[in-house]
Amino acid sequence: MTQFDDATAVEPAGSGSYEAKLDATWSVGDKLHGGYLMALLARAAPNSAAGPGHPHVTAVSASFAEPPEPGPAEVRVEALRAGRTITQVRAELAQDGRTRVAALVTLGLLDDADPHWTSVEPVELPPVESCFLAPREVPGNAFPVPLMDVLELRLHPEQLGFVFGEPTRRGWLDTWQRFKDGAPWDPLSLLVALDPVPPASYDLGLPGWAPTIQLTAHVLRLPAPGPVKVRLSVTEVGGGRMDETAMVWDSEGRLVAQATQLAAVRVPA
Amino acid sequence: MTQFDDATAVEPAGSGSYEAKLDATWSVGDKLHGGYLMALLARAAPNSAAGPGHPHVTAVSASFAEPPEPGPAEVRVEALRAGRTITQVRAELAQDGRTRVAALVTLGLLDDADPHWTSVEPVELPPVESCFLAPREVPGNAFPVPLMDVLELRLHPEQLGFVFGEPTRRGWLDTWQRFKDGAPWDPLSLLVALDPVPPASYDLGLPGWAPTIQLTAHVLRLPAPGPVKVRLSVTEVGGGRMDETAMVWDSEGRLVAQATQLAAVRVPA
Repeated sequence: MTQFDDATAVEPAGSGSYEAKLDATWSVGDKLHGGYLMALLARAAPNSAAGPGHPHVTAVSASFAEPPEPGPAEVRVEALRAGRTITQVRAELAQDGRTRVAALVTLGLLDDADPHWTSVEPVELPPVESCFLAPREVPGNAFPVPLMDVLELRLHPEQLGFVFGEPTRRGWLDTWQRFKDGAPWDPLSLLVALDPVPPASYDLGLPGWAPTIQLTAHVLRLPAPGPVKVRLSVTEVGGGRMDETAMVWDSEGRLVAQATQLAAVRVPA
Repeated sequence: MTQFDDATAVEPAGSGSYEAKLDATWSVGDKLHGGYLMALLARAAPNSAAGPGHPHVTAVSASFAEPPEPGPAEVRVEALRAGRTITQVRAELAQDGRTRVAALVTLGLLDDADPHWTSVEPVELPPVESCFLAPREVPGNAFPVPLMDVLELRLHPEQLGFVFGEPTRRGWLDTWQRFKDGAPWDPLSLLVALDPVPPASYDLGLPGWAPTIQLTAHVLRLPAPGPVKVRLSVTEVGGGRMDETAMVWDSEGRLVAQATQLAAVRVPA
């Protein structure tokens, strides 16, 4: 069992309810990682709701209402519609009787075929070994990133200016990502890759944390073995909020997942 | 009262429940328009859940489980969290006891200030009068578009090739949009603009209908008076599905809303 499978395991607890144990390793500072929480919700979805024909998550929208704590949590799932080609599910993660994360999940059957048509080219990144390994303890950062104990995340060496107060100000950060235990990427774990650390606002000289309010992920196809490339980019910052887009390509250069995110961000006056 | 306000009106029916009347005018073929349905859900959200400080929808994710019928419907809303700067709400639209559309809504306070930073430039479109007015009855189309009775939608004249079987194959369609009754755009009605007709797959030579499975909209700021410009573009088509992005600019050229959509699409073998 991979570290990811273990950390996102859910146990049936009757009538659409599942018991989960939120693993503090999958955290940024003292907050559980958004992509990890979405994966946990999406893990529970097909267990109760879908027929055997729709094993894969193809879309998840999540609203992050209140940060959950590491430890026991309840996941509830409810099928909205089980159709011929997709199943639609409503899900939530609760602790102490309060909904911490609410989600809408679509399930289907993915394959690894090439797209019929695409508008996007994969980002170009130097080889994995030439990229900067993100540490668990970031110099000058107020908090550690326990997620880096399980996820190898390497930053493009030409985009490290934000560390020295000289961000590129283009508004994007490109990374290689793979699991430290060698686990292959799958549709669920791609949700982790879609929510990279740090936020792309760092590349705009806005170093504050950017808590996710709402995040929508699409998983397009089964990823090829090997590390994935991720571009996280800012669409716009204003009014205390930021719109970010993430795209993930597999080792064969195919787009395998994408996300849009609404986050809170502080802009110094 | 504008036609849009009238068609999206909701009446309190006790404990988070609202009565709505779905107006067949806001349809494409015999299906109610997705942006219209989202607006109706978002209209109900602040009534019950938010304090007076969060009057505007800033994000909506909707899962379209089963097409609702014109006529009476129930909207249910439930506050997940009412915070200092935002309120998060879960909503659904039901008919005959079945959830037809499920949604996650974020509410806040928008203004019309310029962004702190943006990555996007407004699309260039010829003047409104030089663009092609989309008709209610499309020649060669199997169904009428009643939505065009209330919405003036004008297509870029250089992107009309799809009508003659000669699409540009760039994967986008640009439109001017304004309401026929002269109603100004507001955060709610921008949800209609974010789900344009026809789908951008028409520009790829895929003329079949593309029913929305899941749609996430972000509203960024209050729009200036006047018509809006909209670009609907395809990210990727494959495996029976399409990822689309929509962006809406107000008459002052500022991005006021954006959306990503997962839709079903048929690719001829």
